[in-house]
Amino acid sequence: MSYQNLQLTQDGKLKHFLSIEGLNKSILNDILDTAESFTSITDRTIKKVPILRGKTVANLFFEASTRTRSTFELAAQRLSADILNLNINTSATVKGESLLDTIQNLEAMQIDMFVIRHQDSGSAHFFAQHVRPGVSVLNAGDGQHAHPTQAMLDMFTIRRHKQQFENLTVAIVGDIKHSRVARSQIHALNILNTGQVRVIGPQTLIPKDCETLGVQVYHDFDQGLKDVDVVIMLRLQKERMTGALLPSEKEYFQQYGLTSDRLKLAKPDAIVMHPGPANRGIEIESSVMDGNQSVILQQVTFGIAVRMAVMSMIASSSENEQ
Amino acid sequence: MSYQNLQLTQDGKLKHFLSIEGLNKSILNDILDTAESFTSITDRTIKKVPILRGKTVANLFFEASTRTRSTFELAAQRLSADILNLNINTSATVKGESLLDTIQNLEAMQIDMFVIRHQDSGSAHFFAQHVRPGVSVLNAGDGQHAHPTQAMLDMFTIRRHKQQFENLTVAIVGDIKHSRVARSQIHALNILNTGQVRVIGPQTLIPKDCETLGVQVYHDFDQGLKDVDVVIMLRLQKERMTGALLPSEKEYFQQYGLTSDRLKLAKPDAIVMHPGPANRGIEIESSVMDGNQSVILQQVTFGIAVRMAVMSMIASSSENEQ
Amino acid sequence: MSYQNLQLTQDGKLKHFLSIEGLNKSILNDILDTAESFTSITDRTIKKVPILRGKTVANLFFEASTRTRSTFELAAQRLSADILNLNINTSATVKGESLLDTIQNLEAMQIDMFVIRHQDSGSAHFFAQHVRPGVSVLNAGDGQHAHPTQAMLDMFTIRRHKQQFENLTVAIVGDIKHSRVARSQIHALNILNTGQVRVIGPQTLIPKDCETLGVQVYHDFDQGLKDVDVVIMLRLQKERMTGALLPSEKEYFQQYGLTSDRLKLAKPDAIVMHPGPANRGIEIESSVMDGNQSVILQQVTFGIAVRMAVMSMIASSSENEQ
Repeated sequence: MSYQNLQLTQDGKLKHFLSIEGLNKSILNDILDTAESFTSITDRTIKKVPILRGKTVANLFFEASTRTRSTFELAAQRLSADILNLNINTSATVKGESLLDTIQNLEAMQIDMFVIRHQDSGSAHFFAQHVRPGVSVLNAGDGQHAHPTQAMLDMFTIRRHKQQFENLTVAIVGDIKHSRVARSQIHALNILNTGQVRVIGPQTLIPKDCETLGVQVYHDFDQGLKDVDVVIMLRLQKERMTGALLPSEKEYFQQYGLTSDRLKLAKPDAIVMHPGPANRGIEIESSVMDGNQSVILQQVTFGIAVRMAVMSMIASSSENEQ
Repeated sequence: MSYQNLQLTQDGKLKHFLSIEGLNKSILNDILDTAESFTSITDRTIKKVPILRGKTVANLFFEASTRTRSTFELAAQRLSADILNLNINTSATVKGESLLDTIQNLEAMQIDMFVIRHQDSGSAHFFAQHVRPGVSVLNAGDGQHAHPTQAMLDMFTIRRHKQQFENLTVAIVGDIKHSRVARSQIHALNILNTGQVRVIGPQTLIPKDCETLGVQVYHDFDQGLKDVDVVIMLRLQKERMTGALLPSEKEYFQQYGLTSDRLKLAKPDAIVMHPGPANRGIEIESSVMDGNQSVILQQVTFGIAVRMAVMSMIASSSENEQ
Repeated sequence: MSYQNLQLTQDGKLKHFLSIEGLNKSILNDILDTAESFTSITDRTIKKVPILRGKTVANLFFEASTRTRSTFELAAQRLSADILNLNINTSATVKGESLLDTIQNLEAMQIDMFVIRHQDSGSAHFFAQHVRPGVSVLNAGDGQHAHPTQAMLDMFTIRRHKQQFENLTVAIVGDIKHSRVARSQIHALNILNTGQVRVIGPQTLIPKDCETLGVQVYHDFDQGLKDVDVVIMLRLQKERMTGALLPSEKEYFQQYGLTSDRLKLAKPDAIVMHPGPANRGIEIESSVMDGNQSVILQQVTFGIAVRMAVMSMIASSSENEQ
């Protein structure tokens, strides 16, 4: 079964949200438009609508996370859902249950939506294949595979600032190879017909067949940055350093750290993004992170609206189905 | 003070839920009937009723648990209670407070119901003896003593499939000796006038005076399984292996593992139950666990309705009392 | 910027709650009066009012706590807030984010109120300096600096029993030097014009310039206890023992432990308080803790009402400001 079939209902509505791959432009635009309507809710004094009232959302985090877990939880709260938080490291697997047994047991608790982060690529997809009809799975990051709500909040942030994608040049900088964020961003940017998508990083951190994804590869940061509208910096996983994939932090910063000086190579109104948490002084200079071209904190805010959008679209399509 | 007095109000209503022992058939049937009405709620799109609105339920888990803790939390949410989750391993006892001080401090926070799981037999009872009038205690498992909501969800599952208890033969298989689940099941089955209750297991794992509980003891699984209507498999605690109470896992499976072949000895329409989490390939073959006689996942679902029933019955009796 | 400016709006309303220092008698009395109105709510069958409906309260605990965290959570629930619990030990800092980045990221999630406990003195103040307008910070204990809601629940308890402060003698006993509780209590008692405030403890545990805070210092417990109306015992941090600041537990109990006998030196209607958790047999004898002069469990109960009061006052002032 392809990702597409799994994510959509017969009549093309969103059922699970596992991967940007397999979705079309119309669905992505729906998500962005719906999120737009939710940003006004999160600005109101009373930040609550009854869309998920009486529904149960389970947050299953097999990996630690503050930002993603918290924004999913807040999104569900603001849609009036009941929430079950499960940190699986310290519970089911203690007694040695398999992932499938965990799924089936939770599903038997009449959970309506699962938000799942797991260290294994494909785990959200596996989950979605095994839940019963009417139950939905939202991928909050699976291994090095996908992080689709992150990509959509990034698209939302870009659209807010640049209105469209067709005439944009967007650069993604850093460890493309191991990044589920980058993978989902590239798919989303392509589906939304972004003018040009560039990836920038050392050879060891760019997948070999990267061009087939429809991007231009740069190993020289200065060349890659030239005239871009959007710079997306990725978090450098420090564990890669010891893995001999990378030189020292200092050298990395010299070659691929975004400084105020370097940023001048981009368009004057270029925006700077980062999925967080950022390593100040490694992939990004503090002055850039806190500077007026940075929209990094807006990304966090928009993340709630985007997650509310995905959850509410899924809820409405599953209601029609039942 | 006997368990009975502690659990019931003057006029015989449920006040605490500590142990099946000490309750009568009429109360158990009330729980089953009330749970029946809640199963329809948990099937609805909006799974919420306002029965515990403005009440606070504290989940005190001194032992790790996913299934029991989550279903209690969901039950409380679906009754619209406010919930305080306390994992006591990592909080109060860090600073060396005694159990009694913990009880009194929590009670001073105007908690209405305590759900407590604790490694010591009798701890829920101790809790109930020390809370003030109007505050209730629900035992979510105390040492090797009792796990009464588990027993009631098991009774509910049996009644759903077999309609009555009088003509049934029910076998409980495995480590009877150390199992709070088995102990509570045996009491419930007896109170509900079950035709015949059998316990099956190696001599080392059956209490010596077991017959006095009104059960028939079998050490031979094949003999014990003959013509039963219900097979309840217990989880094998692997720690017993090293305690010299048991041979190897492989040998255990050969003697007491429920296989498809062995299941043919039971009645053709026999149902297979397990409180979970199951050890596949140790006490139960995967094909049985996932087979069409297994009602193991239904047990989880019914667990929410049964816990809602007990909570709502307690809430209504405590309101009359105040 | 002084504490006062930071805590109050232009027109003198409560905006953050960081420290008793810098507040005036009128604000403290407002808190006590508002808390009075909430005690009736927490006694009702339905303990809920919609004052914080649609607002989000984040509980950030960098230090373990049961009592304070739970009562803040219950206070927020009973005001109908949405709540985000973050135990920061196990989340953001795992990935090495700085405190300021943590603040900014959480703030970007449109949290309305932060409840923060942190091991560093001044951290709540730092937080308050960095949040955007309309966002509030409540100090739930910062290092050895302040614990203002604890002080206010203590004042509430005293007023309930003694009606006024002007004619009272209040003694605070134990490790004054390292206690954020004592520091906040002394400020509150002074602002409320308490007749006489005494601190009692060994020289090593009393700050050198303590008299400048407007208190009388006693090293002899019996002398200090004479004719007091209120005795506040502090928790002895056992780590001070090994730090050579203190003799053995036994010796400490002999010199500074509150026994039934010693309590006779106080006024016959003196009340005994303790912020908890208490070390029975070290700073306080069990018979005193459980005796009829003890109001220790009432303090816990009043803590919820006081926290509801502070949260609701802050919510109403921030609404006016926006």
